[in-house]
Amino acid sequence: MNKLYVFGHSNPDTDSIASSIVFANLQRALGYDATAYKLGETNKETKYALKSFKVEEPQTLSSVDETCDVAMVDNNEFSQSVSGIEKAHIKMVVDHHKIKFETVEPIFYITEPVGCTSTILYKLYRQNDIQIDSQISGLMLSAIISDTLLFKSPTCTDQDKQIAQKLASIAGVDIDSYGKDMLKAGTDISDFTPFQVINIDSKEFSDKNARFEISQVNAVDLDSVFSRQSELEEAINKEIQEKNLDFYMFAATDILNANSKIIAMGNKAKTVEKAFGISLSNNTAMLNNVVSRKKQMLPNILNNLD
Amino acid sequence: MNKLYVFGHSNPDTDSIASSIVFANLQRALGYDATAYKLGETNKETKYALKSFKVEEPQTLSSVDETCDVAMVDNNEFSQSVSGIEKAHIKMVVDHHKIKFETVEPIFYITEPVGCTSTILYKLYRQNDIQIDSQISGLMLSAIISDTLLFKSPTCTDQDKQIAQKLASIAGVDIDSYGKDMLKAGTDISDFTPFQVINIDSKEFSDKNARFEISQVNAVDLDSVFSRQSELEEAINKEIQEKNLDFYMFAATDILNANSKIIAMGNKAKTVEKAFGISLSNNTAMLNNVVSRKKQMLPNILNNLD
Repeated sequence: MNKLYVFGHSNPDTDSIASSIVFANLQRALGYDATAYKLGETNKETKYALKSFKVEEPQTLSSVDETCDVAMVDNNEFSQSVSGIEKAHIKMVVDHHKIKFETVEPIFYITEPVGCTSTILYKLYRQNDIQIDSQISGLMLSAIISDTLLFKSPTCTDQDKQIAQKLASIAGVDIDSYGKDMLKAGTDISDFTPFQVINIDSKEFSDKNARFEISQVNAVDLDSVFSRQSELEEAINKEIQEKNLDFYMFAATDILNANSKIIAMGNKAKTVEKAFGISLSNNTAMLNNVVSRKKQMLPNILNNLD
Repeated sequence: MNKLYVFGHSNPDTDSIASSIVFANLQRALGYDATAYKLGETNKETKYALKSFKVEEPQTLSSVDETCDVAMVDNNEFSQSVSGIEKAHIKMVVDHHKIKFETVEPIFYITEPVGCTSTILYKLYRQNDIQIDSQISGLMLSAIISDTLLFKSPTCTDQDKQIAQKLASIAGVDIDSYGKDMLKAGTDISDFTPFQVINIDSKEFSDKNARFEISQVNAVDLDSVFSRQSELEEAINKEIQEKNLDFYMFAATDILNANSKIIAMGNKAKTVEKAFGISLSNNTAMLNNVVSRKKQMLPNILNNLD
């Protein structure tokens, strides 16, 4: 029997890494020589999940060729996969995305419109009567929490929720507290300098009336971001001076509650107050239901420049 | 919730009809308004299976349109499906053939390299904890027996065999005797005239040395075919005279044992003896391991014409 290479998509998220490990484990239990790989560096959230359940990171795979038997998880498109994928023998696909696929013979291909690949994998374990240990269970749970943003994402289904409950009980964790800790780990910026924090995702804009910058970071715990308010303000002030900005808006977006807490500074910081109908207090304000820079923050500001 | 139209391929076989009924039943158990349809007349084998388990034939579906939610079973190619399929909303696919498929959103799509769609459906019932009654069980068993030729086909897998055993015990039938009876019903020619029997699948060939015809029928019970030998010979003789043939070979092919029993008649019937290294006795002979007209019968005869 040929070795089976199991991997997710490039720029791997927690589902891609976890599902690779979980599916390779299932195939080994079914008698295959299966090994999980990753197609890129694991992010902080995934590292937290792996560490929590004492599972080692898979090796990185740089290419496959015509000698390789392959299982694709969490994706089915060659453009998101490893170099050489078009030459490999794709034996299995487990996915939850749209389909664009063609084979010359029947293969094992499962995709379902659920929030997470691991939700499907849980059912495959059950179908094959393969026991799910606490490590495998913890990884699947982590993947579901990640893909569904702790069940808040519109892609989350009842199946994802129900299976997450079962997995949490096997893994012996409280979904809510573990989930928040894991998502928080993914948004951890504690090892970033204030300058790095405000430049994680920052864009400069200008029109005839003003020159300004909007910076955004994702967060689970807004308090931990704002515990660094004074040093963030120092970095923002430096940017304003160096770039000769009229104002600067830094937004920490709470991915679970869909709100953003901002710091706004500069000569024309009042534009931000007008744009969102809020009053800045100690340079900060909460913007309820505001999460998108492109669709919400920027248009409101552009409409209120003077 | 929209009505779900469930159907297999055109020119339906037992798996296409049975899997449509079985999958629609599963979806109803899961809360969907699902109805099974057929895309053409049911054959004798399928009629036998439906009658055995007291299940009604599905209605025939002639077309679908953009208002229809659809589940395709036992196929995934539009060319084998109903008129209008390209406009319909394909919500689910359960299949065991090669894949050529594209969607704009995630759907429920399962295909596995097993011998029969019903083998996959059994696992879906199990996965969803939906009970399988004796009727549904009997239909799935019939589909597996049909697609795998009672486990003799090279496409048959261990899964097909194991699941067929479980289904037979629920359905309360003996696989071997029920299976042979069903396959026999599919090859039943008792209501055909001798002229119809020899013309079910007959082809005329000629070269400079001879003009001949090879006719083939599938059979489970060769004896029942040859109980009509004298009237078949009468019909064959008429063909020889009317078409001025040098010889005529009629082959009844035993689909379970991969042999053919022939009747060969005409002035140059000795060609057949030479072609297969046999001696005709009472115009008949057994050709062991000969099943294909195109790949075995015709080349052997063409190589021995004189």
